[in-house]
Amino acid sequence: MARGSRVIMKCDKCGGVAVIGMPQHRLNLCETHFVAWMREIVARTIHRHRMFAPDARLLVAVSGGKDSLTLWEILNHLGYETEGLYIHLGIDSDGYSDQSQRKAEGFAAANGLRLTVVNVAEVYGCGIPEITWTGRGQRVCGACGLVKRHIMNQAAYEGRFDAIATGHNMDDEAAVLLQNLLHWQQGYLRRQDAVLPASHPRLARKVKPLCRTYERESAAYALVRGIDFVEAECPYAVDASTIRYKLLLNQLERESPGTKYQFYQGFLAAKAEGLFSEAPEGDSADWSTCSECGQPTLGGDLCSFCRLWRRVRHEDA
Amino acid sequence: MARGSRVIMKCDKCGGVAVIGMPQHRLNLCETHFVAWMREIVARTIHRHRMFAPDARLLVAVSGGKDSLTLWEILNHLGYETEGLYIHLGIDSDGYSDQSQRKAEGFAAANGLRLTVVNVAEVYGCGIPEITWTGRGQRVCGACGLVKRHIMNQAAYEGRFDAIATGHNMDDEAAVLLQNLLHWQQGYLRRQDAVLPASHPRLARKVKPLCRTYERESAAYALVRGIDFVEAECPYAVDASTIRYKLLLNQLERESPGTKYQFYQGFLAAKAEGLFSEAPEGDSADWSTCSECGQPTLGGDLCSFCRLWRRVRHEDA
Repeated sequence: MARGSRVIMKCDKCGGVAVIGMPQHRLNLCETHFVAWMREIVARTIHRHRMFAPDARLLVAVSGGKDSLTLWEILNHLGYETEGLYIHLGIDSDGYSDQSQRKAEGFAAANGLRLTVVNVAEVYGCGIPEITWTGRGQRVCGACGLVKRHIMNQAAYEGRFDAIATGHNMDDEAAVLLQNLLHWQQGYLRRQDAVLPASHPRLARKVKPLCRTYERESAAYALVRGIDFVEAECPYAVDASTIRYKLLLNQLERESPGTKYQFYQGFLAAKAEGLFSEAPEGDSADWSTCSECGQPTLGGDLCSFCRLWRRVRHEDA
Repeated sequence: MARGSRVIMKCDKCGGVAVIGMPQHRLNLCETHFVAWMREIVARTIHRHRMFAPDARLLVAVSGGKDSLTLWEILNHLGYETEGLYIHLGIDSDGYSDQSQRKAEGFAAANGLRLTVVNVAEVYGCGIPEITWTGRGQRVCGACGLVKRHIMNQAAYEGRFDAIATGHNMDDEAAVLLQNLLHWQQGYLRRQDAVLPASHPRLARKVKPLCRTYERESAAYALVRGIDFVEAECPYAVDASTIRYKLLLNQLERESPGTKYQFYQGFLAAKAEGLFSEAPEGDSADWSTCSECGQPTLGGDLCSFCRLWRRVRHEDA
């Protein structure tokens, strides 16, 4: 974005003033052409990974941040039928969850889109930070992921959506990939992809239409399109190891633009050719139905979400 | 090694003063127990990877640095029949190649071991730096690798050795692994292992008995055993990308000891289970014999080593 630089970058399409340079593509673009480029890349990503059909009904998981709101804007612009889902996690620090909800609601209202809000504390009794106070060693991000997945699956099932679209960008995906490779988590490597197919009729298909663009591109898109998003990161994520891996990949990216892109794209290409495809024995799903919530589970009578809440309530009692 | 620290580490085996702490193993050892531990790890690595039989004749590729001399010392101590091979690359900077040769010769003499020296400039007409002045864009490290591989294969064949042992440590291997993964070099990932089997009767089997120990452990071993090694890195390697990846892995290692170990060991384990094992079509070797040197080649009449020298001589003419 030429900040701090005296050289004015020119748009490679029209020669106008560029608002963003993307060294990994050797591409500088003006506002108009950047917006068109982002939409084109997202459309191509949806197409290439056969994410969903043109008439699909999509539930967009919105956090109020730049990625999910940019995603929602683009999907809406591309003509898809979308609704938003905001999950209020009860994170109080500087009013993080309240603020994020206002951004999500503001965007929905401004664009005439429908947003469903699920407030974890109101529905289940306490917010994410309280769950982790149960002293059972349950880590914040692990519990949060579990709660969000459950609520998203529930909302997608009840609303009969064809897929849940999340705002994961390439920085997120590359960081998780590096983490999975450093620890050779073959189960995670098998599942990591642009599309997570529905493994059960009651569990939603999940898609990541922003997985081929960088975080700074979602941010630039949101700024250019005047999308009002919450800038703060989740206070619990600050120390997360994925952030460490993001910084490290950005360090490599600065030294050699395109590293992150090659790394993630190369992984997807290798997967498409069959790498990590073999499922180990016992990986074929043996589903049962949770006696409390009715969602499918692989772990006996109660699903892990309901077990989590039972523990929380038990500790409270 | 407790440098700069006031806490005296104790040896976990005998309670004596530890000379090294290895956080990735939660192990602190005194001089005696560290030396025994290193030898034990190398013996186990040779055994686990079925590197060679107890009566094997081994050609140890020695650079005069800590890793290769430590390796030679340990193999010799373990009772293997070894000879050294020093390749003088004609690198002048601060007398790098001359100095390295003196260290290799000094070690051989002190231990009553036989060392063969091949001086590239004397045998072929010029040293590695001159090769790269041909203006053909041949990178120094690429040309150097090619020359060393050829000379090692030739020496192993002529001397009827069972294997060539190189001093690659886990830092080297993990850095190359990271590089291969960042670029998804599947051919390299398929071949990267503790053992590179002989792909042709005239090409030697290559083994890396130090691949399960860290660079700092070879260094500590050399210091403790009074091995006089050349401390300088090759001046051409300073900017090599593998050094960048080493620094990066060491950064992760500091934050989370054992990262490097897990990363490389996990890779070997995944490979042993069949990951990256599938060879693409056209990978089955179609060997011919180089009309100049007689070594097998996959690339027509001349092998790439002889093509390199022909280019160099042609440019000189």
